[in-house]
Amino acid sequence: MTTVHAYAVTQANGQLEPFEYELEPLEPQEIDIAVEHCGICHSDLSMLENAWNMTQYPLVPGHEVTGKVAAVGDRVTHLKVGDRVGLGWHAGYCMTCSQCLGGHHNMCANASSTIVGRHGGFADTVRAQAASAIRLPETVDARTAGPLLCGGITVFNPLVQFDIAPTASVGVIGIGGLGHIALQFLRAWGCQVTAFTSSESKQQEALKLGARDTINSRDPDALAAAAGRFDLLLSTVNVKLDWNAYLKTLKPRGRLHLLGVVTEPLDLNVAPMLFSQLSVSSSPVGSPATISQMLEFAARHGIEPITEHFPMSQVNEALDRLRAGKARYRIVLDRN
Amino acid sequence: MTTVHAYAVTQANGQLEPFEYELEPLEPQEIDIAVEHCGICHSDLSMLENAWNMTQYPLVPGHEVTGKVAAVGDRVTHLKVGDRVGLGWHAGYCMTCSQCLGGHHNMCANASSTIVGRHGGFADTVRAQAASAIRLPETVDARTAGPLLCGGITVFNPLVQFDIAPTASVGVIGIGGLGHIALQFLRAWGCQVTAFTSSESKQQEALKLGARDTINSRDPDALAAAAGRFDLLLSTVNVKLDWNAYLKTLKPRGRLHLLGVVTEPLDLNVAPMLFSQLSVSSSPVGSPATISQMLEFAARHGIEPITEHFPMSQVNEALDRLRAGKARYRIVLDRN
Repeated sequence: MTTVHAYAVTQANGQLEPFEYELEPLEPQEIDIAVEHCGICHSDLSMLENAWNMTQYPLVPGHEVTGKVAAVGDRVTHLKVGDRVGLGWHAGYCMTCSQCLGGHHNMCANASSTIVGRHGGFADTVRAQAASAIRLPETVDARTAGPLLCGGITVFNPLVQFDIAPTASVGVIGIGGLGHIALQFLRAWGCQVTAFTSSESKQQEALKLGARDTINSRDPDALAAAAGRFDLLLSTVNVKLDWNAYLKTLKPRGRLHLLGVVTEPLDLNVAPMLFSQLSVSSSPVGSPATISQMLEFAARHGIEPITEHFPMSQVNEALDRLRAGKARYRIVLDRN
Repeated sequence: MTTVHAYAVTQANGQLEPFEYELEPLEPQEIDIAVEHCGICHSDLSMLENAWNMTQYPLVPGHEVTGKVAAVGDRVTHLKVGDRVGLGWHAGYCMTCSQCLGGHHNMCANASSTIVGRHGGFADTVRAQAASAIRLPETVDARTAGPLLCGGITVFNPLVQFDIAPTASVGVIGIGGLGHIALQFLRAWGCQVTAFTSSESKQQEALKLGARDTINSRDPDALAAAAGRFDLLLSTVNVKLDWNAYLKTLKPRGRLHLLGVVTEPLDLNVAPMLFSQLSVSSSPVGSPATISQMLEFAARHGIEPITEHFPMSQVNEALDRLRAGKARYRIVLDRN
């Protein structure tokens, strides 16, 4: 019997407190991961607040895990104890539905989420289906790679899903935890990259991270001047913007792709979408195959999240900093 | 000097009356088409009513033309006098912008529309840039093919643009001028086809035209029962529907594609789009290359619009029938 030492909340918006639980015997296809680092994602906050009405307490958050395989089930053949792995939003898939069989495991209706109805990575150990744990390429730094497993794959996945060409002109709306990784991927992807941000200091950083230019997202004139410029807009924000104004910045056959859960309906005008064959879409994280591609791509291009670090014992201080919007750009909890 | 004998309105919602105008000398890349048949499209009505604020009077409607080449400009090499051709919404393109050069002429910002600022096909002659006139395959019947040039290409184009697979499950919303052609194309494309209609008589006809089954679009329970069924929904209606209910009938990675100009904003909920990676999009007609592909495909599969015919001199009676919603499914004016 393995006792897990974790941090949990027992009610909405509570403080995280030390929490122990016992692991059941390993199923044949499962592994245990000895957590070394775990990123904090905005969706951990949403789950802490029960914003999506699916939180079960006690909740152990954490779904941007890097660590080493500590135990493997009888049927696990592709990973062995000691392997360096990452674990993201999903900790298991049905493996047999049409989505899983088609390589789109992140669309599996019965996928299990690392922190929904099970305990996540703010802990010394986290359990997962072996297929959902992705081996880290040798040159990927486990200390900073955690945020790639959720934030990173979220911005990388649409490039794969929609066959974005290196010749594309791409705008990234919102330069935060997701956006600052998107800029790096897109530069390495070969694209013409523009950062939309209202923060002057972030404009400078965006240029260093991969943007060729920046647009002040609070300046309607700047937005109007960008008419017809982009093949793809990746919006990483979760607040309502003037979507119809952003549609005007798309080229014919362009796409506005939303990566944040915006709660207000989109109020899109059809006529401009029709005349220019525009698409509006959204997507969550990515499949294990795409996560693996992403990690190889990140390794090849030296892409890594910019992280701030807290010892896991200071998880409440770390969460306060994220809530205050001060994280630049992603916070990671370290076990040691 | 050629005198064209046409039918025109001189003010919004006026009756069409005989109208003559003189053609300028042919430009080198232009042709004149001796009109034999011309379909009536809902957008002719919209233009008659100046619904899009871009009508110039006198207006000669008509942009679903079939006929024979009557004259060719000095530089026209791919068509000759006597060739059977069709002409649709566009009567010319700039030919040198990135969209034209990329094969997406229907996205050309300087494309000229057959009935915007120029005179269309309710006439004995219509002029067009040679590149916009598409040769009719031998087995295509000029009498019924007119509606393919606008209505037909509008529903065919998304199958090409979005690489719709013959294995796809596709729903067609609205079985009218566009929808009844969509069903035929989709059956020949190999898809699993479902017709959404509230008309009982149309349900039976939809099954004959290519649908495997039908769903009563006014029955919320029937819609709910279709959850997760479709890879693609083609909506041919121009009224607001419960779009979020239709989104629920899509499979993961599905697309809701709108072919009607709906004037009310779409009010889409983001969360379901995100969890299932859904796209919402729209598009207008198609490029000359795609129109040509469509006509070859229609010829190969014996696809033709179901048409009602009026002599062109009875154009006002024909328009009244279309306005009354009685056309089954598309009205064509015949010159002879």
